[in-house]
Amino acid sequence: MRATQFLIATEKETPADAVVISHKLMLRSGMIRKLAAGLYTWMPLGLRTLRKVEAIVREEMDRAGAQEILMPTVQPAELWEESGRWYQYGGELMRLKDRHNREFCYGPTAEEVVTDIARNNLSSYKQLPMNLYQVQTKFRDETRPRFGVMRAREFMMKDGYSFHASEESLQETYERMHAAYSRIFTRLGLDFRPVLADTGSIGGASSHEFHVLAESGEDDIAFSDSSDYAANVELAEAIAPTGERPAASATLEKVETPAVSSVEDVAKLLNIATSDVLKAIVVRGTSEAEDAEEGEAGEPVVLFLRGDHQLNEIKAEKLPGVLSPLQFASAEEVQKVGGVAGFTGPRGLSARVYVDRSAAHMADFACGANEADAHFTGANWGRDFEEGTVVDLRNVVAGDPSPCGQGTLDIKRGIEVGHIFQLGTKYSEALKATVLDENGKDRVMTMGCYGIGVSRVVAAAIEQNNDDNGIIWPDAIAPFQIGIVPMHMHKSEAVRNTAETLYKELTEAGFDVFMDDRDKKTSPGVKFADMELMGIPHRVVISDRGLEAGTLEYKHRNAEEKEDISADSVLEVLKQRVKLG
Amino acid sequence: MRATQFLIATEKETPADAVVISHKLMLRSGMIRKLAAGLYTWMPLGLRTLRKVEAIVREEMDRAGAQEILMPTVQPAELWEESGRWYQYGGELMRLKDRHNREFCYGPTAEEVVTDIARNNLSSYKQLPMNLYQVQTKFRDETRPRFGVMRAREFMMKDGYSFHASEESLQETYERMHAAYSRIFTRLGLDFRPVLADTGSIGGASSHEFHVLAESGEDDIAFSDSSDYAANVELAEAIAPTGERPAASATLEKVETPAVSSVEDVAKLLNIATSDVLKAIVVRGTSEAEDAEEGEAGEPVVLFLRGDHQLNEIKAEKLPGVLSPLQFASAEEVQKVGGVAGFTGPRGLSARVYVDRSAAHMADFACGANEADAHFTGANWGRDFEEGTVVDLRNVVAGDPSPCGQGTLDIKRGIEVGHIFQLGTKYSEALKATVLDENGKDRVMTMGCYGIGVSRVVAAAIEQNNDDNGIIWPDAIAPFQIGIVPMHMHKSEAVRNTAETLYKELTEAGFDVFMDDRDKKTSPGVKFADMELMGIPHRVVISDRGLEAGTLEYKHRNAEEKEDISADSVLEVLKQRVKLG
Repeated sequence: MRATQFLIATEKETPADAVVISHKLMLRSGMIRKLAAGLYTWMPLGLRTLRKVEAIVREEMDRAGAQEILMPTVQPAELWEESGRWYQYGGELMRLKDRHNREFCYGPTAEEVVTDIARNNLSSYKQLPMNLYQVQTKFRDETRPRFGVMRAREFMMKDGYSFHASEESLQETYERMHAAYSRIFTRLGLDFRPVLADTGSIGGASSHEFHVLAESGEDDIAFSDSSDYAANVELAEAIAPTGERPAASATLEKVETPAVSSVEDVAKLLNIATSDVLKAIVVRGTSEAEDAEEGEAGEPVVLFLRGDHQLNEIKAEKLPGVLSPLQFASAEEVQKVGGVAGFTGPRGLSARVYVDRSAAHMADFACGANEADAHFTGANWGRDFEEGTVVDLRNVVAGDPSPCGQGTLDIKRGIEVGHIFQLGTKYSEALKATVLDENGKDRVMTMGCYGIGVSRVVAAAIEQNNDDNGIIWPDAIAPFQIGIVPMHMHKSEAVRNTAETLYKELTEAGFDVFMDDRDKKTSPGVKFADMELMGIPHRVVISDRGLEAGTLEYKHRNAEEKEDISADSVLEVLKQRVKLG
Repeated sequence: MRATQFLIATEKETPADAVVISHKLMLRSGMIRKLAAGLYTWMPLGLRTLRKVEAIVREEMDRAGAQEILMPTVQPAELWEESGRWYQYGGELMRLKDRHNREFCYGPTAEEVVTDIARNNLSSYKQLPMNLYQVQTKFRDETRPRFGVMRAREFMMKDGYSFHASEESLQETYERMHAAYSRIFTRLGLDFRPVLADTGSIGGASSHEFHVLAESGEDDIAFSDSSDYAANVELAEAIAPTGERPAASATLEKVETPAVSSVEDVAKLLNIATSDVLKAIVVRGTSEAEDAEEGEAGEPVVLFLRGDHQLNEIKAEKLPGVLSPLQFASAEEVQKVGGVAGFTGPRGLSARVYVDRSAAHMADFACGANEADAHFTGANWGRDFEEGTVVDLRNVVAGDPSPCGQGTLDIKRGIEVGHIFQLGTKYSEALKATVLDENGKDRVMTMGCYGIGVSRVVAAAIEQNNDDNGIIWPDAIAPFQIGIVPMHMHKSEAVRNTAETLYKELTEAGFDVFMDDRDKKTSPGVKFADMELMGIPHRVVISDRGLEAGTLEYKHRNAEEKEDISADSVLEVLKQRVKLG
């Protein structure tokens, strides 16, 4: 592509409303333009990368035996009523009515539609397993769309769904998808990790998220330093400390702590570590009344953690008797079970109590005295109060032993770009998607689902690959792998001829080449800056001075130094260095 | 692709609600499945063809210098208010509201969005011309979606838009797009015609439709038998008969025609040809009152045609004083200007009168007497009444002289699959899309727009290429170009080996091959029938008997006869015969 034939829409200024780096760089490099909140046009530069991501996803899905289809974006309400999601899905579901007042939604995913296709087109277990996918526009009416295409309302997603006659078959396809996803993100040139993920309220057997590692990620991922173990911190198990709990050695004393209630303040006042303070969190419990409605709150439940640990809400809300989603108790509710907000401790409580494994291992600690402005010191489980049920309640932290049994955990931030999920029969049961089994009996199909946020991958790749000058594309998804800057092309016939020849040869060799043939009104400095902003990984500068010495100047976007390369060998050198997807 | 790994969804029965052949065959072959009225899922078979059409469209657009972008499907109402289309577009515009009650529509086209992009990203005439396009899902909430993907509500369209600083530049890009469209439809393997089309109410300078010729087409196209001239009958000019009008020879007589008012009945009663009867059509005129609102009706206008000719409404509504869109006058309105519904003629009318060129050439004809149950015979213009304004009012018919001056016209039916249009400044003016010109002055850009109904092309190709057994794909857009049927593969090792080798060789040679490896429960007859229904153009049958003679059996989907081809040369023969796009 010649610069003079390309819509270059680079901008010097960083747009005011862009917060994350990928959003800033996508706007500044001219990859996208905002149409309205959460709605973006992919400009020629951005679309080139988006299509490359799409192509790699498609190739690997096909290679793994999945079949591509294309479902409508507009889906009838009836199917969502069958699954129940018409009522459960909140404001994110973009609902619409046609001219005959029939209700539809703009699909945020397509479980209902694909299950409808399966029940209408599959009749025998012999047709299974069947793995269908599409790359299609989705819509989620986010309350607060932000971060550009990272959390847009309209976005491009690859969503796949598999159908099975047995759990074993699902497991097999799930593993094949796991491998396909690993190949996809490897080919995209990204540093990523598949991590164990929470299966959520659907409660399928297994689930993995695929995260691109980047400082700006919204998720915390825990890794073992000695094995492949990786899990979302939401899910990673905090194993119990080894060895016996230290014996009690201090005596229980009540101390005045007027208006001092946070763990940090208590530790400071008492001159102890926060890990020696017991933290109490009171949450609402489920109602045990016979006529209780779903979600109705009953007696509060008290959770105890070590002062330096964070509550893991997902672990907490799965505990028996705890209301899900988690709700914190009011001061009045705390009082009802014998606590005092800000000063709650284990002594004399009349509530169900859960103690985190690490908290249960504490000795001679400080805790609330269940009196305003008072704490105990020298407190000990067993001796001073019962310890309740010991469970895993906290987020893992760096340095924790890995739950896999090997090494210790490290924590990194990640951006979720893929998710695979053993769905089970949630949708197939609701929609009665059955096939005849070996015995001629109806059998509800078991399902898996497999998503990749195609447009999000583009943003995540930038979050992982950038510097002060702009984007640094991995070769496989660079809009152009190679940039040519012919210096004073309009004056020098030698430069012009060399540039044209190289451009032709590289294009014929299958590379996407960007030749900056803009005239002298665009300075070399502007051309270099545009190329760096746009993230073109390989740059060749052609100048009269170089040609006199028989060389072209080569620089990788990532390299500190330029190199002089013999003009004769430049084609071969680039063929070796540029890695096409 | 192996049949056992492909979702074959062929059906023997023709679905009840399918009327046109493409709809029937797309359902029966398993290309599409209906989700709801006007909403279809593209199944693996159908999507393969859709993607091939897309790819050819994209390649030729790129080659012609257009740049691909991707605009959101959901468009903010504000832009449509700026262009005025928010109020003008009727029920076909799918309007929606987001969670904050802001109004949007699901784009049926993207003139507003692309003009917004142009005004925000183009600032100088030096950046022009700029030609942008996308291949994107569109939505039109048709009152009565029908004919499958031919007139679906959600559909795939390539829409392109060009921006220019001058009319000459628009003309140049328009011609380049005309050539690109011709290449596209040629590469798709379709019998098509670019035809002059009406520019409608926008009144741009020029417009062409691209029609796939097929009996089932909804449009009539007029062709010269001696030149390239082709035009939609809506537009084709009916030129005036040559020579002088015959002199009057009969005398004017009033005859009783009780309750006989249609041209056919009058001709029959009087025992003359319908071409000797003058047909009167009374339509509403525009109001001449100073305070008249737009669209308010004024005095009726009377149109006269030869009895055997059809009124061309588009020509009529462009006449001065005629209300547009065309409305027929009521019996009372006819009476007001001196006519009598069913018996209106030129004598004694007090209305504005237009006479078609052919009608103005009639002599000694019959016409209404402006009295109930009475006609004149032997009537003649000039002698018996004034002839009014002579204009082109009728549809051309086969045998008319071509308006290009060469040959006579033939009429064929076509399916509109593309439309190119010199838009002018309608949108750029409304949205104030300007650039600075050579003199540093703001200049409103001139626009062109260029559409291809990508999903409709698939249906049109089938309308043009089918027989009783199913679809007959042109090679370029066949889901698979070659089908292999290995006979008794599971018994014969020789057949199996030959089939596997051929499958591998053909796939490696770049062909899309469908190998029917279904086991013996699927009879050869079913395999042949499925392949014919799916429209695979080249078929190779491998059998033990053939292999003993060293041959494979080849048949083109279109051929009457099978051929035996030497097993050694089959690869070469197929390479010669299969034309990849």
